[in-house]
Parts: sequence; structure tokens; C-alpha cells
Amino acid sequence: MEPATATQAAAPAVPQLKDELDIVIPTIRNLDFLEMWRPFFQPYHLIIVQDGDPSKTIKVPEGFDYELYNRNDINKILGPKASCISFKDSACRCFGYMVSKKKYIFTIDDDCFVAKDPSGKAINALEQHIKNLLSPSTPFFFNTLYDPFRDGADFVRGYPFSLREGVPTAVSHGLWLNIPDYDAPTQLVKPLERNTRYVDAVLSIPKGTLFPMCGMNLAFDRELIGPAMYFGLMGDGQPIGRYDDMWAGWCVKVICDHLGLGVKTGLPYIYHSKASNPFVNLRKEYKGIFWQEEIIPFFQQAVLPKDCTTVQKCYVELSKQVKDKLGKIDPYFDKLADAMVTWIDAWDELNPSGASLPNGKAK
Amino acid sequence: MEPATATQAAAPAVPQLKDELDIVIPTIRNLDFLEMWRPFFQPYHLIIVQDGDPSKTIKVPEGFDYELYNRNDINKILGPKASCISFKDSACRCFGYMVSKKKYIFTIDDDCFVAKDPSGKAINALEQHIKNLLSPSTPFFFNTLYDPFRDGADFVRGYPFSLREGVPTAVSHGLWLNIPDYDAPTQLVKPLERNTRYVDAVLSIPKGTLFPMCGMNLAFDRELIGPAMYFGLMGDGQPIGRYDDMWAGWCVKVICDHLGLGVKTGLPYIYHSKASNPFVNLRKEYKGIFWQEEIIPFFQQAVLPKDCTTVQKCYVELSKQVKDKLGKIDPYFDKLADAMVTWIDAWDELNPSGASLPNGKAK
Repeated sequence: MEPATATQAAAPAVPQLKDELDIVIPTIRNLDFLEMWRPFFQPYHLIIVQDGDPSKTIKVPEGFDYELYNRNDINKILGPKASCISFKDSACRCFGYMVSKKKYIFTIDDDCFVAKDPSGKAINALEQHIKNLLSPSTPFFFNTLYDPFRDGADFVRGYPFSLREGVPTAVSHGLWLNIPDYDAPTQLVKPLERNTRYVDAVLSIPKGTLFPMCGMNLAFDRELIGPAMYFGLMGDGQPIGRYDDMWAGWCVKVICDHLGLGVKTGLPYIYHSKASNPFVNLRKEYKGIFWQEEIIPFFQQAVLPKDCTTVQKCYVELSKQVKDKLGKIDPYFDKLADAMVTWIDAWDELNPSGASLPNGKAK
Repeated sequence: MEPATATQAAAPAVPQLKDELDIVIPTIRNLDFLEMWRPFFQPYHLIIVQDGDPSKTIKVPEGFDYELYNRNDINKILGPKASCISFKDSACRCFGYMVSKKKYIFTIDDDCFVAKDPSGKAINALEQHIKNLLSPSTPFFFNTLYDPFRDGADFVRGYPFSLREGVPTAVSHGLWLNIPDYDAPTQLVKPLERNTRYVDAVLSIPKGTLFPMCGMNLAFDRELIGPAMYFGLMGDGQPIGRYDDMWAGWCVKVICDHLGLGVKTGLPYIYHSKASNPFVNLRKEYKGIFWQEEIIPFFQQAVLPKDCTTVQKCYVELSKQVKDKLGKIDPYFDKLADAMVTWIDAWDELNPSGASLPNGKAK
């Protein structure tokens, strides 16, 4: 199994949402991987969040339109509130979501290449994410032919007509061919497992169901759900890593369910080139592995009051419940709950106009 | 798009569950369609439920091991309880579930042929259903790489380890290439739509989520969920048709959720050869189309008490709630609720040993 070559990747005639979407990339190295994505990404604006040593220079291939933030920039822009942005961890990417001025975000890891579909055609991951985000979700009833809004599909017999309008899609979660997104124990047990199964489906994750949201290949509507896309406190000085995207996913799903917004998963695939070191991962993950046994039931049972009509209000309420219910697991969760509030403060400071707009429809 | 030819269909070396599975086929015509399925079905026992005029002779291709029941047989076996079995409707198939003595049932319509996978290989639908039924389901948390028990797949990062054992699978719901299972309005609007998308996935339908269960290509574990697989009162003398499998699916899902059992959907595909007449369908369906707008919220909110520890107890309790809450929509639901109780009585009469065994684990 091989990634696509650059020449296989043909750009769409008109890049959709060109002026309404930013691509956010967290990185510690030169962004050579962009060469392969050039036909698909070059029309868009990039926000690069440089992790680690700010004195290092990150090389970006020529011809890309980008802004780059290192730790010094983050500290300067956020002042003391910069404490909510993780350091030495790709969780720092969420700073990019905050400084963006666009409606949509696509975020991708720098070890992800262009995958091929079963016919050998290079997959324009961004184009598929945009399709997912621009068509409704159907979280209230399962459609057995998957996304009813795709070409050649529809709602099947027995699907209530009152639910066929769907709800706005807030999140599009893409998948990975080659190296699957496994935890350290699974990596250790199955070092050679590769994902070669191309599943030609997009589906809405039902209301009330949580899922493991991976940040490697992810798009979302900033206006609908942006303030909940906080990747938490990970990495430097924190007792846990590799749960940044998971944390965001749990919060996002609970809030989407509350506000009547949709989350889709499935296509597009990217080609994930390199497994991270399972020993290092185990050290980062091991607390998360047992903490999640309590965190997940917490999120499964979380109820947001009716007056939480904006993502910000939902998120601040969730932070209180985190402090209340998860604080007893470890002092880390007190700190995290505080950081969640700081994040919202910083978000509203950088995005003053959107601070009080209601999103979706609270249940 | 074409179905597979008989010669493309190669039988597995050892037919699995040969003595533990019955194939149930409702029909009004000669079963020539079995020729194509011969390599896959011949090792198994068939239960044919003849619908309509009992004086007609149904021809079954030579070499198949079968028992056949017409209306006279059903009346003789069930006596007055035969009133719960629909006449002039494929809902009569559930009589076959009741008289079977096996642990597993596969049921298929007689206009369903062998489909081909994208490589052109004939799909042994039964073999895939058996795989689905014999591996656990994961209804409590969504796995983004779909069924973690398939070859080359596993649970992804962030999937709680305590949930990785899964729960027993009670139902395997297969899909259809060529003619999709659309309702009459959709058939009328999209007469030429064909399903050509082969989605290489099996997934657990999350707990708390209902789905439109189609009876065309369906397998289940009789011991785990059999008594809930009642296809209701449809066809002759009833105000509604084409909701037999939907009704069963709603009841089954609520009970599976209560008992901690799993429902899978996805593979296998069959090739559905012929669209039924949309005008006839509309006449059968139209009441269902508006009734379902109340029925589905009813099932979404249905709660079964803790002491409902068997499928039978769950089902009788559900029948009470149907009478209580749906009776006001139409007198039909009173009659249906009574028939649900009659069905359980008849089931227990024909299956005396299993009447009081607890299934699954009540929540």
C-alpha cells in the first residue's frame, strides 16, 4: 500500500470555500509534506502552529499562503491566558482555531499524505470534508444506506419523513489508511497491522453516542462549534498526552447533541505514513487509559441545562461539571476545568462579535 | 450492474452452523431463485412459509431439504392463535421463526439474488451473517474503524478498554445492491435510482438509536431475541402493509438495548432484482407514513422495567405500552397489542423449554 504521488493529485476546477476555510497544521518540522497536497491545499490559507522551540525555523514550501505562530507569538497574543494552550504537544493546534477568522477549519497532521481510493485516484480529503460539512447530518435515526445526502443514496423505507431535513453538520471526522490510529497497547500487540480497508461511507454519529475523535484529519464549522474544539492541557508539564483530540471529541459531541448539531465520520481517508513510538505513547497515555473509564461515563451522563444556548455557555457549564465530578479522580481535572474557562475567555477576546450568538437549537 | 451467475458462486469448504440454522423464506411463487443460491444454501434446512392461496403448489428446486407451511398448516398448528400470523403479506414469515427448532435464523426474500463484491466475487450472504452473529457487538461507544472484530481492524485509540469485550450479537441486518429498499414516495420520485455503492463495513447500531430494519436479508439469534421478531398484523384485513419488518425492528432494538444485546448492520449485500409497484406500495404504506411519526418517538422513549429479564417479559410489557400509548392513534394498535400477546403465547407453546430462560442482561 502506497500513498498517491503528486502527479496523481488533480485539483478541482473551483476550490470550494476558498475564502471561508483555514487549514490548521501543528508542527515541529519543515512542512515538506505540503508538496504532495499542493494541488488541493494551495488555494487555501494555512495557519501553522509551531510546537516546541520557537527559535527554530519551520520551512514552508513556496507558493503557500500562510501565517505561522510559535510559542512566543502565542504568549504575546494571549498574555496570561496563553496558559490554556499546550506546549510540546500537537494540542497546541487549537490556538489556530482561535485566531482563524474563517467559518470553517480543516486540520491535518504533518505525517499525513494523500491516499488513493480503490480505483487508484488521489483523494482530495479537503473536498470531501467540505461536502460533509455542507450537507446535513441525521443523528436522530439511523439510515442503513449511510449518508442519505450522497449521490445515489437516500433515506430508506421506514425513515421518518419529519427527520429527513436533517440538522446542520458541525464536524466532519475523516479516517486513515495505512497506519491506523491505535493506542499504545494495541500498537505494541499489533505492530504490523495496517488499515487497507477503504469503506466508502459517511455517516452521522447518532445522538447520545460518543466516539473517539481523532485530530489527524478533521474539519469543522467554527461558527457552529469552534469554542468547544479545545484540545485541553497536554504535553509539557502535564500528566497526560494523546488525549487532546479525545477530550475535544467528548465535549464537542455532548454539546452538538445538546444544540441539535451533527457529527459525521467516515470519508475522506488520508494516508497516515508513520506510526509514532508505542513506548513513548504508552508513557503519555497510561493515565488516560484508566481515567477514560470514568471520563466516558461522565460524558455519557452529562446533561446541559436548557439555558445553555451558545457553545460558550455549554462549554463553561461543562467545565463546572468537570471540576465537580472529575476533580476527585486527579487534581489535573481541576486545572483542566480552569483552563477550559480560560480558553473560552481567550476565544471571546479574539472573536468578540461571535461571543453571544446562539448556535443550533438547544433541546 | 448484474447479479452473480451461479457458476461464480463457490461454496465454503465447511458450511458453518449447518445444523444450527434455518433459512426462512416467505413466498407466493415457485422458488427458482434458490438455484442461484444452491452452493450456499443447499447444506441448510429451509422453512418455506407459503403466503396466499394454500391450494397452490409451490415448486422447490430439487436437492433442498425443506419443510413448507401454507395457511391451512398454520391454522392447524396454532388453532385460534393463528390470528396473530398475517395472511397475504410476507409478514407471515415470522411463523417460520416460531416453528424452527434451531438457534439461528436467516430470512431472505425470493426476489433476492447473489450479489457480487467489487472484485466480481459472488457474495455468500449467509456466511457473512454468521460471521456477524458469532462476533460481539459494540453498542455502547462508536468505533470509527467500524466492526473491531473484522480481520485487519481493531478498536481505535480512545476506545474504553472495559467495553472491548462487547456484547452478544442478536441481529445481523444485511443490505441490498441494485434496487434499494425505498418507501413508495421515494420510489415514485426516483424510479431509476439503483444502489451501486458497495460499502465494505459492518457496524453496531449504538444503544438508544433506532433503525429501519428490513426483512429482505436478515439473520438473528433465535435464542437471544426470537420472541421479539414478530412481524405484526399486515396485509389481508389490516389497514397497513410494508411495516412488518419495521415494527419488528423497533421492538427488537428497544429490547436488545434493554437486555444488553447487539444489532449489527452493513455487510452482506444481496442483489435485489425487482422494485415492487410503488402505487400498490403507497396504498399499503400511507397510514404507516404518518403513524410512524408518533410510533418512533414512542419507541425512542420506551423504558422497560428492570424485572423484564426475558425477551418474552419485555415483549409483553411492550405490548401493554403499545395499547396504552398508541391505542389512541387508531384502534389497529389495540388489535396489534393483543396480537403481540397471542404471538408470545403461541411462541411459548411451540418452544416450551425456552419460555423462561433469561436472555442477555437487563440494564
